[in-house]
Amino acid sequence: MGNIRVGILMGSDSDLPVMKKTAGVLKEFGVGYFMTVASAHRTPERVMNLVKRAETEDWKVLIAAAGMAAHLAGVVAAHTILPVIGVPMDSSALHGLDALLSTVQMPGGVPVACMGLGSAGAKNAGLFAIEVLALSDPTLNEKLRKYRQLEKEKIEKKAAQVEADSLE
Amino acid sequence: MGNIRVGILMGSDSDLPVMKKTAGVLKEFGVGYFMTVASAHRTPERVMNLVKRAETEDWKVLIAAAGMAAHLAGVVAAHTILPVIGVPMDSSALHGLDALLSTVQMPGGVPVACMGLGSAGAKNAGLFAIEVLALSDPTLNEKLRKYRQLEKEKIEKKAAQVEADSLE
Amino acid sequence: MGNIRVGILMGSDSDLPVMKKTAGVLKEFGVGYFMTVASAHRTPERVMNLVKRAETEDWKVLIAAAGMAAHLAGVVAAHTILPVIGVPMDSSALHGLDALLSTVQMPGGVPVACMGLGSAGAKNAGLFAIEVLALSDPTLNEKLRKYRQLEKEKIEKKAAQVEADSLE
Amino acid sequence: MGNIRVGILMGSDSDLPVMKKTAGVLKEFGVGYFMTVASAHRTPERVMNLVKRAETEDWKVLIAAAGMAAHLAGVVAAHTILPVIGVPMDSSALHGLDALLSTVQMPGGVPVACMGLGSAGAKNAGLFAIEVLALSDPTLNEKLRKYRQLEKEKIEKKAAQVEADSLE
Amino acid sequence: MGNIRVGILMGSDSDLPVMKKTAGVLKEFGVGYFMTVASAHRTPERVMNLVKRAETEDWKVLIAAAGMAAHLAGVVAAHTILPVIGVPMDSSALHGLDALLSTVQMPGGVPVACMGLGSAGAKNAGLFAIEVLALSDPTLNEKLRKYRQLEKEKIEKKAAQVEADSLE
Amino acid sequence: MGNIRVGILMGSDSDLPVMKKTAGVLKEFGVGYFMTVASAHRTPERVMNLVKRAETEDWKVLIAAAGMAAHLAGVVAAHTILPVIGVPMDSSALHGLDALLSTVQMPGGVPVACMGLGSAGAKNAGLFAIEVLALSDPTLNEKLRKYRQLEKEKIEKKAAQVEADSLE
Amino acid sequence: MGNIRVGILMGSDSDLPVMKKTAGVLKEFGVGYFMTVASAHRTPERVMNLVKRAETEDWKVLIAAAGMAAHLAGVVAAHTILPVIGVPMDSSALHGLDALLSTVQMPGGVPVACMGLGSAGAKNAGLFAIEVLALSDPTLNEKLRKYRQLEKEKIEKKAAQVEADSLE
Amino acid sequence: MGNIRVGILMGSDSDLPVMKKTAGVLKEFGVGYFMTVASAHRTPERVMNLVKRAETEDWKVLIAAAGMAAHLAGVVAAHTILPVIGVPMDSSALHGLDALLSTVQMPGGVPVACMGLGSAGAKNAGLFAIEVLALSDPTLNEKLRKYRQLEKEKIEKKAAQVEADSLE
Repeated sequence: MGNIRVGILMGSDSDLPVMKKTAGVLKEFGVGYFMTVASAHRTPERVMNLVKRAETEDWKVLIAAAGMAAHLAGVVAAHTILPVIGVPMDSSALHGLDALLSTVQMPGGVPVACMGLGSAGAKNAGLFAIEVLALSDPTLNEKLRKYRQLEKEKIEKKAAQVEADSLE
Repeated sequence: MGNIRVGILMGSDSDLPVMKKTAGVLKEFGVGYFMTVASAHRTPERVMNLVKRAETEDWKVLIAAAGMAAHLAGVVAAHTILPVIGVPMDSSALHGLDALLSTVQMPGGVPVACMGLGSAGAKNAGLFAIEVLALSDPTLNEKLRKYRQLEKEKIEKKAAQVEADSLE
Repeated sequence: MGNIRVGILMGSDSDLPVMKKTAGVLKEFGVGYFMTVASAHRTPERVMNLVKRAETEDWKVLIAAAGMAAHLAGVVAAHTILPVIGVPMDSSALHGLDALLSTVQMPGGVPVACMGLGSAGAKNAGLFAIEVLALSDPTLNEKLRKYRQLEKEKIEKKAAQVEADSLE
Repeated sequence: MGNIRVGILMGSDSDLPVMKKTAGVLKEFGVGYFMTVASAHRTPERVMNLVKRAETEDWKVLIAAAGMAAHLAGVVAAHTILPVIGVPMDSSALHGLDALLSTVQMPGGVPVACMGLGSAGAKNAGLFAIEVLALSDPTLNEKLRKYRQLEKEKIEKKAAQVEADSLE
Repeated sequence: MGNIRVGILMGSDSDLPVMKKTAGVLKEFGVGYFMTVASAHRTPERVMNLVKRAETEDWKVLIAAAGMAAHLAGVVAAHTILPVIGVPMDSSALHGLDALLSTVQMPGGVPVACMGLGSAGAKNAGLFAIEVLALSDPTLNEKLRKYRQLEKEKIEKKAAQVEADSLE
Repeated sequence: MGNIRVGILMGSDSDLPVMKKTAGVLKEFGVGYFMTVASAHRTPERVMNLVKRAETEDWKVLIAAAGMAAHLAGVVAAHTILPVIGVPMDSSALHGLDALLSTVQMPGGVPVACMGLGSAGAKNAGLFAIEVLALSDPTLNEKLRKYRQLEKEKIEKKAAQVEADSLE
Repeated sequence: MGNIRVGILMGSDSDLPVMKKTAGVLKEFGVGYFMTVASAHRTPERVMNLVKRAETEDWKVLIAAAGMAAHLAGVVAAHTILPVIGVPMDSSALHGLDALLSTVQMPGGVPVACMGLGSAGAKNAGLFAIEVLALSDPTLNEKLRKYRQLEKEKIEKKAAQVEADSLE
Repeated sequence: MGNIRVGILMGSDSDLPVMKKTAGVLKEFGVGYFMTVASAHRTPERVMNLVKRAETEDWKVLIAAAGMAAHLAGVVAAHTILPVIGVPMDSSALHGLDALLSTVQMPGGVPVACMGLGSAGAKNAGLFAIEVLALSDPTLNEKLRKYRQLEKEKIEKKAAQVEADSLE
């Protein structure tokens, strides 16, 4: 898929099943990515090294997923001026309200772009990264428009089915 | 400030005092923007026309601010593949929890990059837009690094003051 | 069942099992309806076309069901002065608190009549639509009174059973 | 304003400043209404008598506003098949979350159409009542369309001002 | 078990499995009770008739259990000066937060004694009723003291087991 | 006012302005009470001594008010089988949600009768205590009926005023 | 494991599966502990006796775990100046929000060190106790540093696996 | 006050008025401390340097205060095995719920001892630090016991006043 344009960090390998949605979207659009595990709390140097690597290797967007007191996206954003997308995991006792607030409520000066909780957020993280990359990549731009068109057609098909069923 | 690269939409002119923070950041970085009022509920066609204008005039990023059942960012995102940044207002009886959830919990397929509530979120919306623009604008990239450096120095000065005071 | 008086829109076909409760109530009362899928985010034009069709074909009430950042009812209400009933789905990680606040906290000027979360709300959406229609339809009015009476009798039967069991 | 078509009940006279918004909307549209105080907990018989009066005098819509454990709308709905609109007050320590949930989470069988918290909800209660009445009243229908148009024009004027200011 | 001293009302027969805990406690203490179903919304007259019967037959305490927008305890309290104990059910999408706030946040003037959510609350409703009855019933007073003593002994036995296991 | 029948404990003297509502109600009904400060955390022995005194002096009901992690009512209930009424204070950053849950969510076996937050709860604590005492005190029973009647008349007067004003 | 340095109290033996995580950590570090059941509400004297024993036998840290209206940590802290660590259980209908607020929101003067909900909190309670003990125990200090190192290596191994898988 | 035993870090100088409560407690007990500002997001290296200094200079306890997505305590804990106490600020739109969850919900392996929100939490952070230090400092131990005794006496005085006033 060519060179890495997106880095995907997750705080724990237990986040992998959800974050495969992000990777799947990037793969579908042919965007190179690097996906790994790095905990803001248990491996803080590792997080910093990955951010440095991102800047050195000219990655464009960083996606950080974490649960509970989800500090990963904030810690990544503290060390870079690359756009950072946060994905709060909904795996905690509080169903992700903790991760959501820990990710979205960043103080002024260090932004994190927060997506929704869990699977929908993971998918949207990939799509948002592509929207950013598409600003200077006409091929991606075209693919995004087609993707949206296909999504519409999928819904229209389902709608036709629901309409038909409801007439019976 | 040259041509428009960022569109700032707010659902009500009562959001203006907060959203001036976004405009202030863009001005500080010399990024051209267009700021206006457009309600997803009271002026839906106006919102669509603004999104079309954004695409026609090649704006790069859209920022949408709204309170309560904050649908503006989602409605904007539904009509474009430009990156959309949402800023939930904290002006409601529920202190913005409604606007936050209405902005961040987007379904898979149509991403919105949600910032924090109110002033901090408004400031970060401007900074995040600049981070996106800086990916292909070395001048902005340089300014962002300086901005971060200055922020650090401000805190260090305040820290020195707090340290000195606490020794008395 | 004669002509369409109620339109039922849902944001995703995954809402269908819940929204069949709404359809079931309308069917039970002999009220014609049209049920389909239309996403405020993925098919915004489709939503607008359905609202236009509703006005052209003289439907009376629109019911809109959605989950997460549930914008559907608000978007529908933005395009019509027909009464719009919103049904928040409880399918999200936050158990529907997001959908509830996104549906009920509408800004002044564009009302949405919000029902409760999930199945109870879906059933009540149908009943509320019938209460509105019954204002100018004596047959429906009569049916509603009978329905309430039957509900009472069902509870009284259950009560008698519980009373009997508790005496053993 | 002619005969009464809408009854406005509030649980306490402390709700009056907010509920005047409802009355103001009805007055603006020339819809006759009756506004009074009736507590579900302190004057339950009074509530029932008002509901009976509503049915006898052929009122069309009932609006019930209450705070805290807001039972008024539910109690009114229990005694009538007229459409009941609930307005949760945001006056409690919990900022109306209690009133919102007490109003919106009705069990299946007895619907209440819940509006948003406080002022916006009170205004929308009036507008929703008019939307219901407009179904069989072409004059109201026309007024509603004009009202929406005026709202749009107000926002467009404010937008022009914000745009002009932001260019300075 | 002799004459009825406690009335147990539940809003739906689906609350029965939980409310059997209340009945079980009363049975254990030899306190006569009457348990039935009565919905504040679907059978309001039935609720009032039961309250009247309670006063006529000299019942001492009323226990009311309901879920969602749980109005039952409040409606019962509105019609009597007997002590009313409310048990919020945790069966809703919001895990009972709605029922809890609908039961506990009563306006000044009409008290409801709210217990905790679900099973623990149902058990405690029975025990609290007995505490009230024990004020003028020395036999119950004695039984309560023994009950507490037994509870302590049960915990001490479990504690001894945990201590022994943890030494292994 | 004769002998003490109700003990009022509050966790801090800052709760006094609210708890005077409880005392005011008891005074109005001529019920003797003892009001004092006792912190579950800072003066645990004092709490226990007061509970012992309550049992020795044959008080009938204990009312315990506290804020934040409000343990007072639970601690009191742990040491007595007298009915304990809890009043959660709404003075914390979380507006009393902490105190409410700390008071109401008692484990099975040790009941606390929780009132609503703040002033309304404080007033209702007094009234509920009186309802309990009235079970074996016909004079109090009569006074309670009159109190309810007066409350109704107050609302009817306010209602008449609101009705008159709204006709102007 | 030598003498007892940490006391682990839990409000119910149903908390045992979670609290075994705490014990497991202490065992792993070779720290002597005493684990038992003691309910603040059902066995208040037992709690006090355990606290006295802790002081007499020179235990160093107390860990208290409880759910719902979790008063145990607060009650323990009220009777000692030893450091008290609270672990809120997430077993309630409200998923532990009640236990969390009941444990963490202590009034000024009597601190409790609150850990996160459930398993993660239970594990961290053990680790935090060891951090405290390590201040004056160089062996524990060394073990802690190794533990952290091992945790890092575990994550790095998982990261390598995720990286390898994502390249396929 | 001799050598530094406690480090107090706050994320912003706007937290100073609250955190002076922590410093005040330490001063009152004669415990040397170092108080400064260090933002986890704006000055991450500064935070790390302070943590290194703490270990080099043999500080014993670190206190970290922050608001919103409060990552400071977690980031500090990630870099040290010293006990870290977190104080969530209640200054955000959400009244500190964000800071509380961001501080307390730490993943297993890296503990943070979370205090309550705002002033009470700031005071308790100082007291908890002293409890930890007192484990190996008999003078502090003695002072703590006296402090608790004085607190009790203060409450008893206030109690006497409340009792006297309520008899009038």
